[in-house]
Amino acid sequence: MTRQRFTVVGGGPVGSLLAILLGRYGYEVGLFEGRPDSRETSIYQGKSINIALSDRGWTSLKQIGISAEAKAEAIPMYHRAVHGIDGELSALPYGKEGNAIWSVSRGGINERLLDIADAEPNIETYFQHRLTDVDFSTARAIFQVKDDHEIGVEADYLFGADGAHSKVRRLAHNFPRFSYSQTYMPQSYIELNIPANPDGSHRLEKNALHIWPRKDFMLIALPNPDGTFTCTLFLNHSGDPSFESLRERADVERFFDENFADALDHLENPVDVFLEKTPSPLFLVQVFPWSFNRKVGLIGDAAHAIVPFYGQGMNCGFEDCAELNRLIALHDRDWDAIFPAYENARKPNGDAIAELSKRNFVEMSDLSGDKLFQLRKMIEAKFSQRFPDLWTPLYSMVTFSPEVPYSEALRVGDEQKRVMDTIMQLPEIESDWDEQYVMDRLYALATEAFADPH
Amino acid sequence: MTRQRFTVVGGGPVGSLLAILLGRYGYEVGLFEGRPDSRETSIYQGKSINIALSDRGWTSLKQIGISAEAKAEAIPMYHRAVHGIDGELSALPYGKEGNAIWSVSRGGINERLLDIADAEPNIETYFQHRLTDVDFSTARAIFQVKDDHEIGVEADYLFGADGAHSKVRRLAHNFPRFSYSQTYMPQSYIELNIPANPDGSHRLEKNALHIWPRKDFMLIALPNPDGTFTCTLFLNHSGDPSFESLRERADVERFFDENFADALDHLENPVDVFLEKTPSPLFLVQVFPWSFNRKVGLIGDAAHAIVPFYGQGMNCGFEDCAELNRLIALHDRDWDAIFPAYENARKPNGDAIAELSKRNFVEMSDLSGDKLFQLRKMIEAKFSQRFPDLWTPLYSMVTFSPEVPYSEALRVGDEQKRVMDTIMQLPEIESDWDEQYVMDRLYALATEAFADPH
Repeated sequence: MTRQRFTVVGGGPVGSLLAILLGRYGYEVGLFEGRPDSRETSIYQGKSINIALSDRGWTSLKQIGISAEAKAEAIPMYHRAVHGIDGELSALPYGKEGNAIWSVSRGGINERLLDIADAEPNIETYFQHRLTDVDFSTARAIFQVKDDHEIGVEADYLFGADGAHSKVRRLAHNFPRFSYSQTYMPQSYIELNIPANPDGSHRLEKNALHIWPRKDFMLIALPNPDGTFTCTLFLNHSGDPSFESLRERADVERFFDENFADALDHLENPVDVFLEKTPSPLFLVQVFPWSFNRKVGLIGDAAHAIVPFYGQGMNCGFEDCAELNRLIALHDRDWDAIFPAYENARKPNGDAIAELSKRNFVEMSDLSGDKLFQLRKMIEAKFSQRFPDLWTPLYSMVTFSPEVPYSEALRVGDEQKRVMDTIMQLPEIESDWDEQYVMDRLYALATEAFADPH
Repeated sequence: MTRQRFTVVGGGPVGSLLAILLGRYGYEVGLFEGRPDSRETSIYQGKSINIALSDRGWTSLKQIGISAEAKAEAIPMYHRAVHGIDGELSALPYGKEGNAIWSVSRGGINERLLDIADAEPNIETYFQHRLTDVDFSTARAIFQVKDDHEIGVEADYLFGADGAHSKVRRLAHNFPRFSYSQTYMPQSYIELNIPANPDGSHRLEKNALHIWPRKDFMLIALPNPDGTFTCTLFLNHSGDPSFESLRERADVERFFDENFADALDHLENPVDVFLEKTPSPLFLVQVFPWSFNRKVGLIGDAAHAIVPFYGQGMNCGFEDCAELNRLIALHDRDWDAIFPAYENARKPNGDAIAELSKRNFVEMSDLSGDKLFQLRKMIEAKFSQRFPDLWTPLYSMVTFSPEVPYSEALRVGDEQKRVMDTIMQLPEIESDWDEQYVMDRLYALATEAFADPH
């Protein structure tokens, strides 16, 4: 019996991880990437792009045994370093003592995964192979090679791991009963840079995610191992202020002066970059099904492009891979069973993290704003510390509790919100928040909401 | 000054109504329809297609003075005639005494509106003109005429009133920051027919919407003026039972026998039709923006294709027209102001009726099912009769209260649901529902939820 063949479209982190786990099940895997191999050709133009990895990502990477090495190159961020408009700094821990989210070089983790894939005997990697067509009934794919000639690639199954703009997904668009949604956020973004000190050290505190929350917009900075920070400015596309309204140099200078004065000491030509760069839009994509004819599947951003405000994009993609890994074993390599089980298991979680990520812009950009919002967080944190079994804050469920599915985190989070809404309506809450009766009332409400009825 | 020109794509009820109101503002209007003129060529193949019109539709039609004539040809349906699985009939009124939804011939109302449009001096109607392209910066459109040659049509503004499969909307797909969603429902549908009696009278009660609710599927029948009923069978696309699972004649016969025994006396060859017809999918489309460059707009189903379970599709489209009519006057024909005001006013209502329509499948298909659900409705109706200012049932807000925007109806309906959830948790609710203390508790909760805080 010949071995079954898989085509994996997209050699990013998720596609590479998927190829590895399929290869380790003994399948023949062709991993196809449209861009050149970053290990041979610098495609990053000297730019460090980092992404946040947290417990879901690490747990998933453990399945193929590379969690420890990858973690060694990542930078833990234990708290948000919140930069007030007056330059005042405050630290907001992400979770309990020792909890961290990790700044990871996207290129670095990608190259590490590609190296592992290349070392597997039954995985072939192909670069500069751009997908042009898929036959959804045979899993045959056509690739354009180096913008030159086209080749046809036969396989038993095909996965689209080709990211937020997935070509596989776009080709599936006319599949009968294909539900599809693309939603643009009001914000767009540009990336800015904070260089390293001459000695290679970081100019801002290294082990933190820096954030300049300004309610309707915000700047964030994540540390890179080379001493630089990659910064992202999220700002409305239109309105005031916005990328559309800020077109004059003087206005942009004033905007940075008024809002990010303390960052101006560090940012590399932010005004020039602001005026030169075209802001990138932020959008979500949700689709169903995630598989077609039990031949072709979608995974990672191709199945669920989300916004970056929860730092969960790659985590969710890796979790897709881990779930698939589990299901291949569970269903004994029967893909007629695996495809539906996979999409039914992961779709609610993809939808939940999409919703949570969208909502989290407000949480992030308002961190130093609304006092009542801060008070609410403080009461919640205090209660959670006292009754950890009754209350895990939503952020911790999403980020530090891989055993809690995203969909469950969303549901519980909504219940928690209802409970806290009631607490925040207590007439004297602003003065009395630290009183025992507030904790008592919260305990009663939480017990009612979360006590197991079974 | 030359008069400004509008191109309206789509000569259905919404496009025709829009053309009339634009014409009456003095604009030059070209109304373009891809199909032949149904007034000259029979395009309905003898089929009566009816749709439900209710107070929002009538209120909107009043603006152009054709409400009374159109109403004369419509059939009021005062209640749901619910056919139990044992053939038992029960009547569930739609609202208060005299409240009705109206069965209207889609072709009839369309032709009436086209006649009015043709009578306007500055409206030209064109049939067999199929849109192939739109220039979104100039509002210039290309039409293919009778599958023969193409013409270019200049205009100052263009509206896509071209329905659920709108070509204008599809052409807008690559517009920057265009949010788009298409969602398929699990159900598909086929149309069936109940012929008239030999004397032209109706074989079932005329002034009712007949419904055979079977929880996961349902059959409905709306009366036509010619004595026939147009019936629609809504059934899951896949699963059991479904259009996919019922492929053998014997199975389909058994399905009708077991579920629609009393309808079998009247339906015209339902088993043949079931086996021959390809079921139509049910889908929703939601987009934003609804206007592009302040030159091109979407209206009606083109802007918000919804499912038919609330009977609100044409009502919502007519309401779009009425709102636009109001805004043209309010903003003194300044389309730079009208387009954003229109989409901001209507988008939340389009989204709300989409959501309400989706949810209403359960209400309709479960009408004679779940006893607790029926009890809930009974308590609500009783309370609403006693305290009409405090509680208008959701169905009545949507259907009989054009002064309440859909978005407001959705919001209030959700609040009502929360209140009724609490009531239904009263321990003895099934035996005590008619007791005074239930009304008292409901009064207390409703007052808290809906008392005006201002």
